[in-house]
Amino acid sequence: MRIAVDAMGGDYAPVEIVAGAVKWVAEEVGRQIFLVGQEELLKQELKPYSYDPSRLTVVNASEVITMEESPATAIRRKKDASIVVASRMVKEKKADAILSCGSTGAQMAAAIFILGRMEGIERPPIVASIPNMTGAYTLLIDVGANVDCKPRQLLQFALLGKTYASIIYGVEQPRIALLNNGEEESKGNTVTMETYALLRQQPGINFTGNIEGRDIFTGKSDVIVCDGFTGNILLKTMEGMALFIAQGILNTGGPIPAFFQRLDYTQTGGAPLLGVNGLSIVCHGSSKREAVYNGLRIAEDCYNKNIIEMQQLELSRISG
Amino acid sequence: MRIAVDAMGGDYAPVEIVAGAVKWVAEEVGRQIFLVGQEELLKQELKPYSYDPSRLTVVNASEVITMEESPATAIRRKKDASIVVASRMVKEKKADAILSCGSTGAQMAAAIFILGRMEGIERPPIVASIPNMTGAYTLLIDVGANVDCKPRQLLQFALLGKTYASIIYGVEQPRIALLNNGEEESKGNTVTMETYALLRQQPGINFTGNIEGRDIFTGKSDVIVCDGFTGNILLKTMEGMALFIAQGILNTGGPIPAFFQRLDYTQTGGAPLLGVNGLSIVCHGSSKREAVYNGLRIAEDCYNKNIIEMQQLELSRISG
Repeated sequence: MRIAVDAMGGDYAPVEIVAGAVKWVAEEVGRQIFLVGQEELLKQELKPYSYDPSRLTVVNASEVITMEESPATAIRRKKDASIVVASRMVKEKKADAILSCGSTGAQMAAAIFILGRMEGIERPPIVASIPNMTGAYTLLIDVGANVDCKPRQLLQFALLGKTYASIIYGVEQPRIALLNNGEEESKGNTVTMETYALLRQQPGINFTGNIEGRDIFTGKSDVIVCDGFTGNILLKTMEGMALFIAQGILNTGGPIPAFFQRLDYTQTGGAPLLGVNGLSIVCHGSSKREAVYNGLRIAEDCYNKNIIEMQQLELSRISG
Repeated sequence: MRIAVDAMGGDYAPVEIVAGAVKWVAEEVGRQIFLVGQEELLKQELKPYSYDPSRLTVVNASEVITMEESPATAIRRKKDASIVVASRMVKEKKADAILSCGSTGAQMAAAIFILGRMEGIERPPIVASIPNMTGAYTLLIDVGANVDCKPRQLLQFALLGKTYASIIYGVEQPRIALLNNGEEESKGNTVTMETYALLRQQPGINFTGNIEGRDIFTGKSDVIVCDGFTGNILLKTMEGMALFIAQGILNTGGPIPAFFQRLDYTQTGGAPLLGVNGLSIVCHGSSKREAVYNGLRIAEDCYNKNIIEMQQLELSRISG
């Protein structure tokens, strides 16, 4: 498997990105990495490592997109940005996946403009795997790509989330719930009330109704659908709360319980953008080598399980 | 101080409500409780206790509003429901405050129809005090009363939240932030982007900009403004996550660190509805005696600090 890694994106780029990539590629012969970014810098960074140059190569990309830029504009103007070059490699079948820890907006824009959206998908969502009480994960979709969502777009998220949960989590009939401010059908804002009606009518999905915030962690749902505004705030709140509790335990003399490892996003590594015609793995901006390594493993898992083709199949079933 | 307690509302009514009220009223001579609910039942419940009957009296109310009923309809139809009778006592100045652990929607409806909204307030919000890393609390407003909010209504929440934080938390120039999916001014959905502009223009408030989920617990804001859909999901997610972590620690052999007490809502007890012309304290539906007792203490604190008059003053300053 060949992965084009955006070596310039993320808080710890390129140092930690390079370290994670070197570790992953060394493990198995069938793996190949393209480190995409400023050639001189990356070659310098690679010096301390011993690696097989036929399986780890640097691909030059002179420009970098920062967090402050408008993603869509940046993607159009900076044709030689690392995320653009990496995405093009997937489009041209020179690589099987992209991985980036940089601006998620830019990665999404590159995916839409270069790889293209799947038929039937208006707004590709970003997903996150949330650990739950059963020891498994629950998929939260969307966690930030689309702040204002229409009901039919939330339905599209449900279809993509269904595929992800069945393929990646291995759940047979994923239970799909709608995040809401109450369990009753009558609860919700304008958008979720309309979405509830759409989800209930949709054939081929196992819609279990509304889910409240307090039940996210119980494992009673495999996929939780929400707009990207709510999902983004929620995901960051979970991250902030884990830190708050860990800090509070430390301050009151505790040791940090081992369980906190389950809340560590570096264990998950990353997740693919869904609804785009190519594998593009989003990693946390603060990813260090372990998270990058785990992100690459996710990419491999998605590739081996044909996540792109499986989404296309699910969508064609619906429209057909 | 005289408090009309809705003795019929909540998961543990009337047993735990009565126990909390008896404890509170016994502590000081100046305190008075009206236990509002089914007279025979409450008299039976009071039998094991010794109390001063001149300071703890039962007020009969034959009807009960359930969680399943439409709050507005129930309030109009059930004139003898405990929450209606209790609210009327405040309106008629027979009591200084109401406290309820029952349906928040019914309590809000009773507050709006019987006590009335303050001038300049379209949609009274519900608040919650969130513990933060500085050892203090951050006010989250609205946590569930209004699922679809207009920017001007979020501005009204900010004004009410300012008063609450300065009066109850004792913060001089409360830092007010807007909950959003990014810190930058350009971030947000349609509603938060418009709200940002309104808050920035508003004289007399210390608006510090957008706040992300991960910073809720840092204590960098005193008041965090959001719509009731997001706030409700967020609050319940925090509750669910605290349980998830505690359960996870237990399952992996740990003792629960003492710090978890800070996350326990029973310590806070309750919070007043803001923007209505009377003191109405909302408590968690699962409140036991300690939470009820702490809720009564919050009621007393709000009463002593003239929270109603201070809100009216703040609102008249703005319109004047």
